[in-house]
Order: sequence, then structure tokens, then C-alpha cells
Amino acid sequence: MNQVLSADAAMARAIECARLGLGKTFPNPIVGAVITSATGEFISEGFHQGADHAEVVAINAAKNIPAGVIIYVTLEPCNHQGKTPPCTQAIIAAGIKKVVYAVGDPNPIAAGGGEYLRASGIDVEQGLLESEAAFDNRAWITKISKERPRITWKIASTMDGKVAAADGTSKWITSELARADVAVLRSQADAIVTSTATVKADNPLLTSKGAGKNPVRLVMGGSEIASSAQILNADAETIAIKSRDLQELITLAQARGFNQLLIESGPTLGTALLKAGLIDEVVLYQAPTFFGSGTPSISDLGVATISERLDFEIADVEVIGADLKITLIKSANQEEGGR
Amino acid sequence: MNQVLSADAAMARAIECARLGLGKTFPNPIVGAVITSATGEFISEGFHQGADHAEVVAINAAKNIPAGVIIYVTLEPCNHQGKTPPCTQAIIAAGIKKVVYAVGDPNPIAAGGGEYLRASGIDVEQGLLESEAAFDNRAWITKISKERPRITWKIASTMDGKVAAADGTSKWITSELARADVAVLRSQADAIVTSTATVKADNPLLTSKGAGKNPVRLVMGGSEIASSAQILNADAETIAIKSRDLQELITLAQARGFNQLLIESGPTLGTALLKAGLIDEVVLYQAPTFFGSGTPSISDLGVATISERLDFEIADVEVIGADLKITLIKSANQEEGGR
Repeated sequence: MNQVLSADAAMARAIECARLGLGKTFPNPIVGAVITSATGEFISEGFHQGADHAEVVAINAAKNIPAGVIIYVTLEPCNHQGKTPPCTQAIIAAGIKKVVYAVGDPNPIAAGGGEYLRASGIDVEQGLLESEAAFDNRAWITKISKERPRITWKIASTMDGKVAAADGTSKWITSELARADVAVLRSQADAIVTSTATVKADNPLLTSKGAGKNPVRLVMGGSEIASSAQILNADAETIAIKSRDLQELITLAQARGFNQLLIESGPTLGTALLKAGLIDEVVLYQAPTFFGSGTPSISDLGVATISERLDFEIADVEVIGADLKITLIKSANQEEGGR
Repeated sequence: MNQVLSADAAMARAIECARLGLGKTFPNPIVGAVITSATGEFISEGFHQGADHAEVVAINAAKNIPAGVIIYVTLEPCNHQGKTPPCTQAIIAAGIKKVVYAVGDPNPIAAGGGEYLRASGIDVEQGLLESEAAFDNRAWITKISKERPRITWKIASTMDGKVAAADGTSKWITSELARADVAVLRSQADAIVTSTATVKADNPLLTSKGAGKNPVRLVMGGSEIASSAQILNADAETIAIKSRDLQELITLAQARGFNQLLIESGPTLGTALLKAGLIDEVVLYQAPTFFGSGTPSISDLGVATISERLDFEIADVEVIGADLKITLIKSANQEEGGR
């Protein structure tokens, strides 16, 4: 007999499956699906990797689907013909009797799947582990709601907020394990954004070093990129945005359908985005060390007094090797003032 | 029947008891003791609060002590006549058959208790939960080994390492819960150290606000303290050290027998201590916010390049209210270079 899953466990597993798609699905959301028998016996699972939708992957993964099965999906099944036929049709054709989904589809083009399935006589439930599934899909949800990608700024600093010592040295502030974690973060982003100044100073590769797929590399700024720069190698696509205008970055990201941008540059670019209200999230790797002097992680934000500070909320804290990884999400207060 | 404790559980309880003495025992260590029957039934417990030693408190707390009991003590029972008679005598007089202690006494004057008890026919074991007990007693252990108190610097900063905004405002960077935790930290210190500049700028009270006993308040610096300053009120003793010479602080602390100093001041005093290798520990309260400009938490340390950085290790991380509390212990590397 197969493992028997509670509804919560089945959805939690679907959420875990979905997460494996991070960085592979843009312009689509991440989605995971688990099929169980009516009594909860595990049958199959799947996730969206950019081609077949999760529901179809899970249906195809099952050798045969007995009567009365339940499918758990992290997002409302789509009801429209896109690159693939509507998932609602595949669900009906497979003879699935019950659909449990976590998050309603906020995308007007694809929505209505739940209603359509219900009208077709299928038992439909919504909301199981909704906030957990929505949190993991926050890049795509940000894109739908703000019509621009979610923008995360990665910072590696000392505990006194310095990203380089007085002489400019910064290799390496954080430990090898923390840097390996950054590689995973890169693999989950659709594009990395850096500046011509950072390319010139550090000659970074900005790949995921085998931790997953490589993101597109976007380089902002007016300076030329040396033809010998590592960022121009064949590991991934690199696009030079020959401007400091943040709108050009947004326009390019919109055109490409990126869900998630990861900012990896000196303080200038990140500070400009933060000042413009465009930083949704900060992932701060902090090494337990102090420089005293050196380059501050953030340049002048125009914050003159404490009440003007830019508030975030701690979403997660993790000790990675010798360092801390702190995930900060823009707070509702700042969100109201931002765009 | 009373609760039956394993040896580990009994010692863990003794360690918890000991911790209740933090801030109350200087110049002595904190010590906790638990008495159980030979089969582990809980009989009594006690901790040192500055008068009777923990062993004696636990012995006196037992209505009657049956034959063959075991005492668990966090520190080796003392063997000398100090303010009170030797604990070894009290243990023998009580008819205790077995003594389990965590940490050997590093203080040559009081040591030898384990050996004396063994010679008196008592079963003696050492080392149970030794590192846990030693960690909690690190202030006193530092004082014995370095012949100066342990010095902890409390910092409340933003995630970009600022302790005040551009206009000097800093009330409040951290949340009320974090500030309540600082009050506990103060109650566990023997003395708080601040500067005349901080007294002038912030007019702090520096008491533990009812969280425990109030520490002695030490004010360093050449300026006069206004007679209206809150720090001169009757809540606790206040000593003006009319100098910026760190040696005067150390000499005073040695004379008073302080185990633990807590630094709460602007960046100047803390930076001077850090530069001198005198900061053993940093407790960093970080609010999830950014100022960009403003006052850095640490002034110039003379760190010119990354290899000269001052390394710590993360001993603990805790989310307190909206903020992070990070406990950093001076790393072995830095320790070698420091004094």
C-alpha cells in the first residue's frame, strides 16, 4: 500500500514540489500538484518546469488513475489555452473527482478554473495552506499585482553594515557556505542585475555555479563592459542596459516576463532602487565581523530623521556556516508609500 | 513520590537555577545546586544570590536529607573559608554520598574541593554539562582568567549598521520588546558603562526598569554631568570616572570585583574598547530598517583591509518582537591578537 497523506500533508508536498520550479517557469508561476486516492493514498506528483503544467505532469506520472481521486494543486488550475491546453480539461478527462487548490489565480486571463470545474460536477475546495503557497509564489504574484517583477537585493555585509574594507577589499566577507547559498538564490531568480561599475571592479561571473539553471545577466550603467569580462562568457545570456534609468530595467523585465530579479551590485544601484520603492525584499548575509571604516552597504537614501526610515519585516533568519542569512520583506507601511 | 530526574536533567536544572543569580553574585560566580535521592527523586534546589552558597541553600531547603543522596552543582564546591564556611564541610555534614559538578573551579584560592571530598570518601564526578555551565558563568571565568571583568557591548542598530539617523534621532530604532530585553541584560550585569557624551545627548536612566536588580552606573569622560541628569538619581549607585583612559575603567572594575560590564554608549567608547581588544562579546539588537545615512554603530577601528577585520562568532540569534538579537563572542583568532 502506498503512503497515506492527510490533506495538509498532500498540499505541503505539492508546495515542496512547486518550489523546485523556482527560476524555471517565468513568465509563469511555480505550481506543484499531488494526486491521491479518495482515501489519501499517494499516487503521483509533479511540478511546472516551464513546459507542461503541474496538473498534467502529475496526471501523466500516474500509471493509471483509479476512480474518485483527489488532486492537490498549489494554484487554481488554469482555464485557458496558452502554450498548453487548459488544465481544467486535463483534470476532467482524467476522471478526477475532487480538486483542492491553495491560491486563487490572480491573473484574469487564466482565472475561472475553479468555477468551471465546479460547474462540471467536480468537488472543488480552495484555501488549504494558501498563505504558504502564496509566499513561495510571491515573485509571480508581485508581477501580476504590480506589473513588474519582484526585486530582491542581495547584500553581503559585516555586522556594522560594511560591504568592503577601507581599501576596497571584500573577498570574502562571508563564508563559503553562505556564498554557496547565494548560488542557489541565483538559480531561483530569472535575472541577476548588476552594474558596469561592479563588473569593472569585481569581474563577477554571476552564475549559479551548478546549483541550478543560470539566470539571465543584466548589466546597468553607461560604461563599456570590457570584452574580457567574465560576465560576457557563454554560461548564460547577458544583456547590457546602457543606462542608469531604472525604468529601462523595468521595461526590459516586463518585456521578457521575468518574475524575479536579484540585485547583486555595489551600493549605488541597490540604493537607487530602494529609494524608488522598488526593493520588495532584501536577503542580507551578515558575517560576524566588524570593519569600522569602509564602504557602507547602503548609500544616502534621503532619510533625514528616524520617522522617515524604510521599514522591512523579518521573514526568516538562518545561520549558514559562520554567517547569518536574514530575509527582509518590505513592510506594509513602506508599501503604502512605495509604488 | 517526587519527580525522578536523570543526571542530565538534574544538572540542567541546577544550571537553570544558577542563571537566576546573574548580576547578584559578584565578585563570586553564579552557582546552582540540585539534591536528589540515590534513585533520582527530586529533593531540593538552590542558587547563590551573593550570601549562602548554592550547596548550602539546597541543603537548608531540604526538610530532611535521607541517606545516600546526590548533589548536582554547576561549579566545584569550594574548599576554603571565605565569607562563608567551606561548602565541602557542609556537604560532608549533611551526609551526602555523591557529588556531581559541572565545572572545575579555576580560582586557585577556592579549588581543591573535589579532591577533598573524594579523600573524605564521597563519590565525586566532574564534567556533566560542563560547557553549558561554563558558558553561563563566562563573565566570572573571564574575570579569573584575564584578571578583568568580561566586557559586553550592547548595540541597537538598523540592518545597515546605523545607530542614529542623519539628524541624530535614535528613539527608538528597536521595538519595545527588544528594549525590555535590554533591561534584563542590565539586571544581569554588575555595572553599566556609558560616557558623559551619551549622558548629555540622551539623558539615560540605565536601570533595569524592574526586570531585576539595578547595576552600578559608571560614566566615563571628561565633561561634567549635569546635576539634573537622570543617571544621578537614587535608583542605583553612579560613579563618574573623570577620564577617557580605559585603564581607569579596568582598575575600578578590578577593585570592585565586577564580573560583567555592559557598555551602553555612543560609538566612541565601544570602538575604543573594541580596538583595545577589550570587547569579549557584542549583543546586537538589529531592527529591520535602513537609514542609509546617519551615525555608524562603530567608528574607525584602524582596519585598513579585509584581513585585519575583527572577527566574532555567532553564539545565539533570536527574533525579539520585530527585531533580531544577535549574540557575538570574540573569536579565537581575534582572542590571540587581543589581550
